[in-house]
Amino acid sequence: MSSSSQAAAPRRTWVPDCPADSPFSLANIPFGIIRTRNDNTPRPAIAIGNHVLDLRALTRSSSFPFAEIFSSTSSDNNANDDNDDAELKQALSSPTLNAFAALGRPVHRRVRTALQALLETDTPHATALRDNAALREEALLPKTTVRMNLPMSIGDYTDFYAGYHHAYAVGCMFRGPENALQPNYTHLPVGYHGRASSIVVSGTPISRPKGQILLDPAATGPKKPVTGPCRRLDFELELGCLISRPNAMGEAIKVDDADEGHIFGYVLLNDWSARDIQSWEYVPLGPFNSKNFGSTLSPWVVLADALEPFRCHGVENPVVRNEEETGGLQDYLREKVASTSVPGARGGMFDIRLEVDFITPQGDTTTIGKTSASQLMWSFPQMIAHHTLGGCPLRTGDLLGSGTISGPGAREKGSLLEMTEGGKKEIMLAGMEVRTFLKDGDAIVLRGDCGAGVEYGRVGFGECVGRIQTGLP
Amino acid sequence: MSSSSQAAAPRRTWVPDCPADSPFSLANIPFGIIRTRNDNTPRPAIAIGNHVLDLRALTRSSSFPFAEIFSSTSSDNNANDDNDDAELKQALSSPTLNAFAALGRPVHRRVRTALQALLETDTPHATALRDNAALREEALLPKTTVRMNLPMSIGDYTDFYAGYHHAYAVGCMFRGPENALQPNYTHLPVGYHGRASSIVVSGTPISRPKGQILLDPAATGPKKPVTGPCRRLDFELELGCLISRPNAMGEAIKVDDADEGHIFGYVLLNDWSARDIQSWEYVPLGPFNSKNFGSTLSPWVVLADALEPFRCHGVENPVVRNEEETGGLQDYLREKVASTSVPGARGGMFDIRLEVDFITPQGDTTTIGKTSASQLMWSFPQMIAHHTLGGCPLRTGDLLGSGTISGPGAREKGSLLEMTEGGKKEIMLAGMEVRTFLKDGDAIVLRGDCGAGVEYGRVGFGECVGRIQTGLP
Repeated sequence: MSSSSQAAAPRRTWVPDCPADSPFSLANIPFGIIRTRNDNTPRPAIAIGNHVLDLRALTRSSSFPFAEIFSSTSSDNNANDDNDDAELKQALSSPTLNAFAALGRPVHRRVRTALQALLETDTPHATALRDNAALREEALLPKTTVRMNLPMSIGDYTDFYAGYHHAYAVGCMFRGPENALQPNYTHLPVGYHGRASSIVVSGTPISRPKGQILLDPAATGPKKPVTGPCRRLDFELELGCLISRPNAMGEAIKVDDADEGHIFGYVLLNDWSARDIQSWEYVPLGPFNSKNFGSTLSPWVVLADALEPFRCHGVENPVVRNEEETGGLQDYLREKVASTSVPGARGGMFDIRLEVDFITPQGDTTTIGKTSASQLMWSFPQMIAHHTLGGCPLRTGDLLGSGTISGPGAREKGSLLEMTEGGKKEIMLAGMEVRTFLKDGDAIVLRGDCGAGVEYGRVGFGECVGRIQTGLP
Repeated sequence: MSSSSQAAAPRRTWVPDCPADSPFSLANIPFGIIRTRNDNTPRPAIAIGNHVLDLRALTRSSSFPFAEIFSSTSSDNNANDDNDDAELKQALSSPTLNAFAALGRPVHRRVRTALQALLETDTPHATALRDNAALREEALLPKTTVRMNLPMSIGDYTDFYAGYHHAYAVGCMFRGPENALQPNYTHLPVGYHGRASSIVVSGTPISRPKGQILLDPAATGPKKPVTGPCRRLDFELELGCLISRPNAMGEAIKVDDADEGHIFGYVLLNDWSARDIQSWEYVPLGPFNSKNFGSTLSPWVVLADALEPFRCHGVENPVVRNEEETGGLQDYLREKVASTSVPGARGGMFDIRLEVDFITPQGDTTTIGKTSASQLMWSFPQMIAHHTLGGCPLRTGDLLGSGTISGPGAREKGSLLEMTEGGKKEIMLAGMEVRTFLKDGDAIVLRGDCGAGVEYGRVGFGECVGRIQTGLP
């Protein structure tokens, strides 16, 4: 990779309306699936400042030198022949990002680098789009004029529990600090299979679920549940990871091969949770209806390469700290992570600043939580190595959730369950409102941001938004 | 529906090599996806005796009166116009059964009835195929010459725990008879999200998974797991249910609408389980790697209508027996099940005789378990009503597993865990072999059969087979 090892002079795009603090700077180039009023067919695009660039339009334009742009800036050593071009053109015209993701990370890297050159002020390649008024008109669209689809067709969704402080805090609530973490927690990335059919893109309303609830769990005698709308509706702040290339059934992915070989990129994920339904249903097979009524994804996939400069170490695993007594980390989970593209960048986590905004039905906004993705204890490569240890096949487009990310501090929590200590303490909101859990009309906005990174600008995720609406009677 | 209310004289097919005891009699007409040596494109077929009928060949033949056959025997009141024909032709030429399933049960009923008329001796419609030698040659293939695919593209897989005696027996092992069933067990169909990507069709080898295992769970001091091949590999005898029409996200399916509106048909399901991996990983979020290395489906989907004559009641729910003390069954789970097509057939379960054969690497076969699908306590309509209570969308092709089906008796168990009392007792096999769990080279065959049903013959599932192979080093 070339870009970040070059001169560190600030770089700018010629695309208008790209504020210096935009999360979608030249350093980012996140991929999504757009639709427009004129053309409702879903198709790939990237975000740059307050615009999106319709990639299908580039593949179709007779005046755009597609092959020249997407092969001559190539930084991998693959021969780029006509077949590759055709394959890439087809991927960049597809209704989901699955075909593009399946091309593998060297191709993602080459295309991202080429798009940076195309969009940067005063590079030789900038002319291909900047000086082609007709194509610019067609392909470079104000962000406000497009609608976003889910970026990928998601075959399977797995949710992990890798947020150390979340697991500890919830464990304390249920079992006290002595037994907060289950004995397996530090030895393997605990996870469970989630529901793919109810994953929706940011902005989709979430209906308050009905469910079976035990109103008085402490009551003696036979348990008498009731059926009704969830009364303890919560959000969960998570990072999501999308899979690029599949592994064959029966073949495990090695922890150090996961990143380059199998990770496409990252999104924000709100894993809405019905706490009252969860506590009654989850023994012994895990959460079910408390989770499967809706999960919200941010629309723009930040490619794995865009996060390389922000590598860092996560929460130290007590098993590693205390190797003699615990037997240490199992071999298949030991990773040696140094960035392949950014000198000096080390660690399996990313220093993504995460924020949660609470918007009341009246429109008052309060930032109720701030934390970082570095508060995870298991990295995505470790999750992938564990997930496939027994031979489970991951497919292109599969989604892995990190589990709720919380920091140790009181204002660093990624769920209302933690902020309110299980519903016992109200949180204060702007507009003189208080909450323990979500009311109808409340909205939650997740944001993720790597700040002014290297020489290009900020790398951010944009927003992941969902508003609660009244469920069906 | 007409067929079963007509005269009860035995009916026969003109198709040769259809033994009287074939599970694929005229009464069945199960749907599957075939490939052949001459044409590797997957396409729909039905099984009849020892033959399969390639349905795509019927849609393509210029000499076959497709519209006449598939509309004139119609028993529903829908107008059958050219559009319907085109839609049906396309569905019957697709590489999975999803498009056909999505047409809904009235269409499945019409097509099945038409196929019965086409294949029955001496009906007016029999001539269309029986007397068309060229088409017969092309479309009617010996079963031994076809290979089977998975019948459907499965979006999400949910596994329930509806086998009362299994839940009770396993509960006794872990918690003793007093607390064998968790308090929620009788109030809701406990279930969890499974892994769709590792579902394979009968005959696919299953690699012994590696995993984290706690060799001595009772040892005091810090837990020290090891990583290695599963030592307690088990099967699970289950019935699988495939979804026809989807529900919209946010909209629950009523228990009495589930059967006609959303169930396509049934298959046998072997939910292979790694017991040692499971016991270490499953707290608190449920089974994960212990289940996601492979699940085997039988290839032929027995349509919901074919099972109507075999309705019966399942295991009585203690909550119903004891309504005053328990509050009774929640309203959304109360079903009033009488068959819509078979007079007198009542109940939410089906009296499917289930058998498990164990085949050693030397080829010796022992029938190690016999039970019935009537040993379930929750019906599939109840599972569907519960699954969608909070608004979770089911999609065409989704798979619901019943959970392991066991009877109360010692020889009626659906897993080795139960047969061997947690691995403490060996089972005796033909060929002087004994087992507690599965060795490499062992095969498990599940069979399901409704026996000589009504006037047409037997309705069976055929076999669901998997052999254990050594996993990767």
